[in-house]
Amino acid sequence: MRGQNVLVIGGDGFCGWPTALRLSSLGYDVTIVDDFSRRKIADALGADSLTPIADLHTRLDTWEQVTGRRISFERIDIARQYDALKDCIERLWPDAVIHFGEQRAAPYSMRGTSEKRYTVSNNIRGTHNLLCAIAALRIDTHVVHLGTMGVYGYDGDGLEIPEGYLPIKVEADDGRLFDRDILYPTNPGSVYHMTKSMDQLMFQFYARNDGIRITDLHQGIVWGTQTDETRMDERLSNRFDYDGDYGTVLNRFLMQAAIGHPLTVHGTGGQTRAFINIADTVNCITLALENPPERGDKVCIRNQMTETHRVRDLAQIVARITGSTVEMVSNPRKEAAENDLRVSNKSFLDDGLKPITLEDGLLHESVSIAKKYQHRCDPAQIPARSTWTPEQQPGTIGSDPMKGVA
Amino acid sequence: MRGQNVLVIGGDGFCGWPTALRLSSLGYDVTIVDDFSRRKIADALGADSLTPIADLHTRLDTWEQVTGRRISFERIDIARQYDALKDCIERLWPDAVIHFGEQRAAPYSMRGTSEKRYTVSNNIRGTHNLLCAIAALRIDTHVVHLGTMGVYGYDGDGLEIPEGYLPIKVEADDGRLFDRDILYPTNPGSVYHMTKSMDQLMFQFYARNDGIRITDLHQGIVWGTQTDETRMDERLSNRFDYDGDYGTVLNRFLMQAAIGHPLTVHGTGGQTRAFINIADTVNCITLALENPPERGDKVCIRNQMTETHRVRDLAQIVARITGSTVEMVSNPRKEAAENDLRVSNKSFLDDGLKPITLEDGLLHESVSIAKKYQHRCDPAQIPARSTWTPEQQPGTIGSDPMKGVA
Repeated sequence: MRGQNVLVIGGDGFCGWPTALRLSSLGYDVTIVDDFSRRKIADALGADSLTPIADLHTRLDTWEQVTGRRISFERIDIARQYDALKDCIERLWPDAVIHFGEQRAAPYSMRGTSEKRYTVSNNIRGTHNLLCAIAALRIDTHVVHLGTMGVYGYDGDGLEIPEGYLPIKVEADDGRLFDRDILYPTNPGSVYHMTKSMDQLMFQFYARNDGIRITDLHQGIVWGTQTDETRMDERLSNRFDYDGDYGTVLNRFLMQAAIGHPLTVHGTGGQTRAFINIADTVNCITLALENPPERGDKVCIRNQMTETHRVRDLAQIVARITGSTVEMVSNPRKEAAENDLRVSNKSFLDDGLKPITLEDGLLHESVSIAKKYQHRCDPAQIPARSTWTPEQQPGTIGSDPMKGVA
Repeated sequence: MRGQNVLVIGGDGFCGWPTALRLSSLGYDVTIVDDFSRRKIADALGADSLTPIADLHTRLDTWEQVTGRRISFERIDIARQYDALKDCIERLWPDAVIHFGEQRAAPYSMRGTSEKRYTVSNNIRGTHNLLCAIAALRIDTHVVHLGTMGVYGYDGDGLEIPEGYLPIKVEADDGRLFDRDILYPTNPGSVYHMTKSMDQLMFQFYARNDGIRITDLHQGIVWGTQTDETRMDERLSNRFDYDGDYGTVLNRFLMQAAIGHPLTVHGTGGQTRAFINIADTVNCITLALENPPERGDKVCIRNQMTETHRVRDLAQIVARITGSTVEMVSNPRKEAAENDLRVSNKSFLDDGLKPITLEDGLLHESVSIAKKYQHRCDPAQIPARSTWTPEQQPGTIGSDPMKGVA
């Protein structure tokens, strides 16, 4: 597998950058495709990464200095520059394309009409352009896409969520039972999650009609910052988002703890979610790349998560490690106040994944990132500002914790 | 209900135009929104309507002369002119929006990369812009969307297709059975059908998150041309497409019969499909409009079809009426060669729909349209030219009927 040609779309982003480095260090020929939309949105929001992140050219030069390996770069907006994307794929003829190139924050996607429209237009057109280019070129490349656990929804009734497909029985009028194996019915909780559900339909179609080999990774909420590669030089550092739009819940807790702010829990904190460390994200993507589906197979869907927790329990863990307090705030989202979540992640465990647990990694993350860079934190960025409907209030300390809970 | 304000998006098109006339004649205040994309595509394809169709301003003036009723018009491309769309909705504050504004031909959507990309970009952004505008304005309007039976797919195992939702049982590891009611799993057969499947996910989300009242009509293949209103003056005539991209199967058969061309059946002709007459389309949309879901309800999905037939049986019916011969040609589509199809259309029958059957309406259609306008026919437009994959051959007479059949 090493020596293969891999395109990493969105390779300047939070998951894409450490993935590009890992694959390069493993001997893949890596080309990053990016349009810097993540950096541009961060600038527009005034929400800097807590960790100082170098510009991409510095990153790539540093990587070459440190390892002797060169990662190429092509600046392409895959949603708006189809011809450039197709031309890039035709020139490089990649063995695999890892596709991180989508707007990836649920709160940002609910911020307002223009963010909703941008998220749909950007994510759907980008993913469809990629599939169209591959179909038009008739290249047998393996598409590895970063999806989300959120497509399954969080209204779980206790049934374990399988890896993408659900065997069901349907009873006909005459009492006969029909067996079918269906794509797990989606129940997306934001416009962002909705686009990932829509992506799934495009993958199903292009896998069937054009034989494109596709792996779709339904990822949990990522925590952590660094991988072995991003730690090699500070200029290789990965981004750490703690703002209300892009900061995932655990990173926001760690940031709040570092600056002595109470940990703010939305609603009752009874929402159970799936989690994964960024280093395991990179491990999983490598495993997915090395275990592609065959041409003609249905889309290979794998759940990329390692543990589940209730948000309020997470807050308690962080509070215990850091000595912080916990405060409940109103929930800006429209979601079940409490839910169970059981998820199968058998396919990665079978491939040898050894998960990094929160218990093992959290203290280190707290000290080496949140504490170390706390002087760069802008506390005004922490609160969630996007609400799911105009009736709801953004979560602010001191408001009624039950307000806005469905 | 009469006197209500209704927006008909795509009101210059094949289903939209007779709908706009019917609603106007019933006393609704109708505004057509259209960007003439259907006419522009027809021009680009060199594929004229068999029936001479007047430009929209002539149509609207004629309608006013004949009935004394005025239909308004706003030229808006809903996929690309969000602000104009939102402004229009804000000014008119419609009680209902009937949404026909999507690229609607499966073969056209498979013609090439630019048509695939156009279909996705146009249909998804248009529908999403409409939902966004309604959510932003917080207007309690009823969206009636023209979907397609094709979202269900045609791999039927004999189970009757319900109206949108499927009650299922899922067996857990421990043997417990879980009951759920899910959106019927989609299996779209073209990029066009794929966009309608994706629309469904957007409707589910916006109905749940923003309480938008939505009816999604899963329509069968439409045949026929005129309704009581379009017959009132030749300048009100509806379009009749017979080309390989936009001509639906029955209209193509009628055209072929009229010019003495053999009726060309794709593959074995064993594909079973659902059908509806254009006059029943208009009746169904009126019924849907008059029976809206309540705010907070889930999306109301209704199957808008009246009978099912195998394509080869249809050909035999037309051959019997017209004295034509039938020829088998290769199938340009990727689909099951033979399938069963049982569909529930209980909701419209319960509302009082009295279907026009093929047996009753076909001969009249053959004489009054295909025969009457046969001098306007360009036989070169009839064959299907789009293929689903580059390996396939377009359907031409004399080729192996089994070639290209999956």
